Amino acid sequence: MFNQENTRSQKTMDGNYAAAHIAYAYSETAAIYPITPSSPMAELVDEWAGNDAKNIFGQTPVVSQMQSEAGAAGAVHGALLAGALATTFTSSQGLLLMIPNIYRIAGELLPGVIHVAARTIATHALSIFGDHSDIYACRQTGAAIFAEGSVQEVMDLSPAAHLSALCGSIPFLNFFDGFRTSHELHKIHVWDRKDLSALFDEEAKAALQRFRERAIHPANARIYGSAQNPDIFFQAREASNPFYIALPEIVERQLDKINQKLGSHYGLFDYYGSPEASHIIIAMGSVCETIKEYIDSVPYERFGLVCVHLYRPFSASHLLSAIPSTVKQITVLSRTKEPGSIGEPLYLDVLAALQGSPYQSVTLFSGRYGLSSKDTTPAQIAAVYRNQEKKFFTIGIEDDVTGLSLPLPKIPSTAPQDIISCKFWGLGGDGTVSATKNIVKIIGNNSNMTVQGYFEYDSKKSRGLTISHLRFGQSPIRSAYLIREADFVACHNPVYLHKYDMVQEVKDGGIFLLNCYFKERELDEYLPQKVKAYIAKHHIKLFLIDAIRIGKDVGLNGKISTILQAAFFAASGILPAEDAKRLMKDAALQSYGKKGENIVQMNCEAIDRGFSELVEITVPADWAALADSKASLDNPVLPGSSELIAFVENIQQPVTDQRGDMLPVSSFLPYADGYTPPGSSAHERRNVTTEIPVWKPENCIQCGLSLIHISEPTRLRCIG
Amino acid sequence: MFNQENTRSQKTMDGNYAAAHIAYAYSETAAIYPITPSSPMAELVDEWAGNDAKNIFGQTPVVSQMQSEAGAAGAVHGALLAGALATTFTSSQGLLLMIPNIYRIAGELLPGVIHVAARTIATHALSIFGDHSDIYACRQTGAAIFAEGSVQEVMDLSPAAHLSALCGSIPFLNFFDGFRTSHELHKIHVWDRKDLSALFDEEAKAALQRFRERAIHPANARIYGSAQNPDIFFQAREASNPFYIALPEIVERQLDKINQKLGSHYGLFDYYGSPEASHIIIAMGSVCETIKEYIDSVPYERFGLVCVHLYRPFSASHLLSAIPSTVKQITVLSRTKEPGSIGEPLYLDVLAALQGSPYQSVTLFSGRYGLSSKDTTPAQIAAVYRNQEKKFFTIGIEDDVTGLSLPLPKIPSTAPQDIISCKFWGLGGDGTVSATKNIVKIIGNNSNMTVQGYFEYDSKKSRGLTISHLRFGQSPIRSAYLIREADFVACHNPVYLHKYDMVQEVKDGGIFLLNCYFKERELDEYLPQKVKAYIAKHHIKLFLIDAIRIGKDVGLNGKISTILQAAFFAASGILPAEDAKRLMKDAALQSYGKKGENIVQMNCEAIDRGFSELVEITVPADWAALADSKASLDNPVLPGSSELIAFVENIQQPVTDQRGDMLPVSSFLPYADGYTPPGSSAHERRNVTTEIPVWKPENCIQCGLSLIHISEPTRLRCIG
Repeated sequence: MFNQENTRSQKTMDGNYAAAHIAYAYSETAAIYPITPSSPMAELVDEWAGNDAKNIFGQTPVVSQMQSEAGAAGAVHGALLAGALATTFTSSQGLLLMIPNIYRIAGELLPGVIHVAARTIATHALSIFGDHSDIYACRQTGAAIFAEGSVQEVMDLSPAAHLSALCGSIPFLNFFDGFRTSHELHKIHVWDRKDLSALFDEEAKAALQRFRERAIHPANARIYGSAQNPDIFFQAREASNPFYIALPEIVERQLDKINQKLGSHYGLFDYYGSPEASHIIIAMGSVCETIKEYIDSVPYERFGLVCVHLYRPFSASHLLSAIPSTVKQITVLSRTKEPGSIGEPLYLDVLAALQGSPYQSVTLFSGRYGLSSKDTTPAQIAAVYRNQEKKFFTIGIEDDVTGLSLPLPKIPSTAPQDIISCKFWGLGGDGTVSATKNIVKIIGNNSNMTVQGYFEYDSKKSRGLTISHLRFGQSPIRSAYLIREADFVACHNPVYLHKYDMVQEVKDGGIFLLNCYFKERELDEYLPQKVKAYIAKHHIKLFLIDAIRIGKDVGLNGKISTILQAAFFAASGILPAEDAKRLMKDAALQSYGKKGENIVQMNCEAIDRGFSELVEITVPADWAALADSKASLDNPVLPGSSELIAFVENIQQPVTDQRGDMLPVSSFLPYADGYTPPGSSAHERRNVTTEIPVWKPENCIQCGLSLIHISEPTRLRCIG
Repeated sequence: MFNQENTRSQKTMDGNYAAAHIAYAYSETAAIYPITPSSPMAELVDEWAGNDAKNIFGQTPVVSQMQSEAGAAGAVHGALLAGALATTFTSSQGLLLMIPNIYRIAGELLPGVIHVAARTIATHALSIFGDHSDIYACRQTGAAIFAEGSVQEVMDLSPAAHLSALCGSIPFLNFFDGFRTSHELHKIHVWDRKDLSALFDEEAKAALQRFRERAIHPANARIYGSAQNPDIFFQAREASNPFYIALPEIVERQLDKINQKLGSHYGLFDYYGSPEASHIIIAMGSVCETIKEYIDSVPYERFGLVCVHLYRPFSASHLLSAIPSTVKQITVLSRTKEPGSIGEPLYLDVLAALQGSPYQSVTLFSGRYGLSSKDTTPAQIAAVYRNQEKKFFTIGIEDDVTGLSLPLPKIPSTAPQDIISCKFWGLGGDGTVSATKNIVKIIGNNSNMTVQGYFEYDSKKSRGLTISHLRFGQSPIRSAYLIREADFVACHNPVYLHKYDMVQEVKDGGIFLLNCYFKERELDEYLPQKVKAYIAKHHIKLFLIDAIRIGKDVGLNGKISTILQAAFFAASGILPAEDAKRLMKDAALQSYGKKGENIVQMNCEAIDRGFSELVEITVPADWAALADSKASLDNPVLPGSSELIAFVENIQQPVTDQRGDMLPVSSFLPYADGYTPPGSSAHERRNVTTEIPVWKPENCIQCGLSLIHISEPTRLRCIG
């Protein structure tokens, strides 16, 4: 979108950081209450205020944590009435609790900004993950709704939300996708304080002046919140029309200022793709990045995308002027499900916008995607462009009940050739996520490569599975989806090899790094047959490191991530080895300097040994001929009611085995109301420990916790 | 709609009572929290449970008042999970606080019913009055939404909400218009316990059995409210599709049962009007009654109405089959304003429903009406049917800013000829509303007439203006709007004559009843010129009563409503005088029997004197020639800032003078954000007291409250 040559400095950060950066600059007060995935925004703003950082007005914003999101919205409302530029941060149910106040803030034409890391609203089950159900639940409140699709866009465009709110006297919900954008690390160009001050131009200053003048305080007593009766309420409500009519152009002016500074072309609706497109998608949020990547991968196709930034007020004229006149088919993608509605909200809006336009007779399709962070891949986008039959459909799942899902085509990789993708399988709490975040930052901040990091957790967090998805390259990275084909895969927990198909995700000729106790000579016995066969057949370079033992040796017992980070740099060669070592050691000094030289020293030793003790294995050619053997790691089925066993077999085990994505809708018919049979935890043996306790009678003090009687690490084979 | 010959007994009640009647019968528990205008439902249910009344299952429902509507929704959610049929009652912000739980209750496929007296959501100002903004704010939650347009429909159809919720495993928002339906007294046919038990048929019993089986209790441990991750949430969410697909037909089955019992034709969408209509309106709520009345008044026009009962799930096929094939124009009326949207919600739904149908090319219009109980009259409906130009419009106001409003035609009265309409102007707290409610009940329950009573208050309540609108007649009463042309007008406070145009609302030859101290001979001096002229020119029968003096005489000091009630019966002759006296005395015995014979006796005396001391005035013919004289009751303008004076002159004074309805949108531009200048109360002199204090030095004890030194009543003239 924007000119990479612009003069802004670059930094690696996530969407929450980018939004907090802007919110802090333009706010005088923030009322906060934490909720995943928005919490880091509030935490950052609180931290910066604690460090006495200044906003563009030279003040330290006042940050107050309230007792709930309802209180945060109330405090924002009150602060705005008192003439303070106020902001807050939230998601999902938190946003729902703000709804009554949002109506008031909008009704009173107050310029608050609520930054939303959009998240699923709990229905049959809770989900901490991302979709747009929370944002759509506010579309009737009178607040403006403004969307960004990437970390860079959050940085670039959030100023427009703050400035437009002020200049237009309408509160803004400024949103981006929970986790996918809020938690995605990306190397982006950053507005500095000077830029942000410059964007706050004469129009904004005049608006600020007007805002101050209407502030209530003892010397300027004003009444808000009065009651009106049937005689005048309706007329008074219509008196706000001019503000809504004016807003799209006010937003456009703010975007123009940004475009001038960046050489970008941001608008209320951004068009991307063939100027003579016959089939366009209309969507908002991070999926737009994936759609752009897909469009770029099929330049011979007449495909296009309209990316929605200003969702409310919904300007039909701006949408229409973004659509190429050649369009024959339009598909609207909505990241929500509103059961009982006749169509998802963005579809209804687009349909209404087309009325009376030259596109009124264009066939409209409507798709639902990405609920609760369901990964939306280029292949799903291909399915959308190919779809000519299902007017209403879903992508990303197999719907064998209502038949709404589109068939998923196999398509070649759509990411630019120069992008290197890496995937790290870790155990929650083993430091893998922190280590891979460090990798992203080291590469991002010390090379000319673009970087992206996305971190998959299950909601068990500690001791659950973590998968880090890292991309590096020269081209812009628009892959807002998980890595399924990697140049590099690291397995930080050897037990996983027996549970998950991970080596199968390494590209031909790619690298597989295995952390385990085994020596090269033991590998033949240890590795599952199908893994060995895959490695050999696909010419995968196999690297081995025993990080657990090195960790114990250097005194970082259990903290193996530094070693594995070093091993990654050593195996991948993505940076020159000496540079990587030095940068890692600098980072260790920064992280652990305060904890004493000893700790720093241990980390430096771990780094050195991670580099030096990495072993590349010569893969025996005969592995290629090995037949698959039945994995013996399946959990034994414990006794239980037939209902429980059915749940364990049909839902829980596939989920534990990372095959949940493949479950079709019909699997959930017995659990459509969110019901989970009790007692299933006993059946969920995750088999992830690398050590098991052995009872030594001679040491026994009858403490009852055999776990503390750990002899030397026991090498696990295929045991439960 | 329904066959008046059905065997149900008749009773005069309001919509809240009707809904509570049904809710009580079908619920095992109710969690309540009061909010206007829904509170009476909760209060009635609480009262009945206190009296140990039984539901159809022979139980006394458990009623719990919670700490807020959020708590009420949470308690309903919990009760449902525990297998109890649960209900609650709310409006407006109360409903907003329930939204997070509604998502959960719907997601978990639980059959709760929330009865909603639909009310305006507070925006630039609070309003306790009615529109559909609260209901529309829930359209995305997954709850079914079911609408009734009259007190009779609330009685007839609410069982369908309870039964469909249970049989369909989807929660229902069962709603009707706040105040217009919730507080309108109407003589209706009532389901008795036996009928309601019979409607709970085998299908319902089987559904109840299934509902009980999934209840959580210690012997049936079940888990709800678990967390799901990106791998399975989307599929699990789609697994609820079959429930939503099935629901319209489940609702239809319940309506069929009702239709069989009543000979009615209720459907998901009811069609009314010309079978060959070229222009139809689609709407929901009480406006449908007014539209039906208007259609009946122009039988030669090809006009029709589709009245929406089941708004969610929105069944396109049912809507399409309700539309006559001759349709050329469709106007959708929505009773909400969603600023920044591209169209109001019902319009968007209808537009989507028409896609791919034979009506796809029919011109669609969209109108906004009735916000905050703005009266929607037949003339406004006429304007809608005449409109061929404004695709988006408003009715009921003059929009001189954005030009959205339709011009209002003058049309003849649309109510059936036999309907008698009566209007009573009272002072909040003077008993007028109670008295007119008694009139409605006495006539409703002791004649074969249909009755309707609607009671206008301003939100000042005590000492504010009250206007009671009563209609009686043989024909069904569908006039869901205020009376502007009455057969009978009573002025219970003589000061009003100098303030409001009320005699001007008496039809030619109608009756005007004036309560005042004046004797016949003093009238000429007392009455304003224009009132006298109007009475004489329009042959209005003028009656006089001095209820204040009679009240003092019989010992009912200040409680004049019984006397005025008697005077109404005497003047109107709507019931034979002896019958009316007897019925009023029976009612007094019932109301005051517990307070002792003395009180009953005083009331009986008041009734007798109300009849006997009513005087019909011979109107002097020369009144007709009187010219209008400038009323001298205008408030003197007090000192204040120019901003304050502008507000007082442009908004406050017209509102106080009951001319607020006439204010155009432009009047509110300076107050579009809800701002009210402080200090305006000092300028609001309502001039409504009938007595003023006189200080008597010889009695003075220097208490400082001169108000208690009241000498004999001072007759007010045109003094402030």
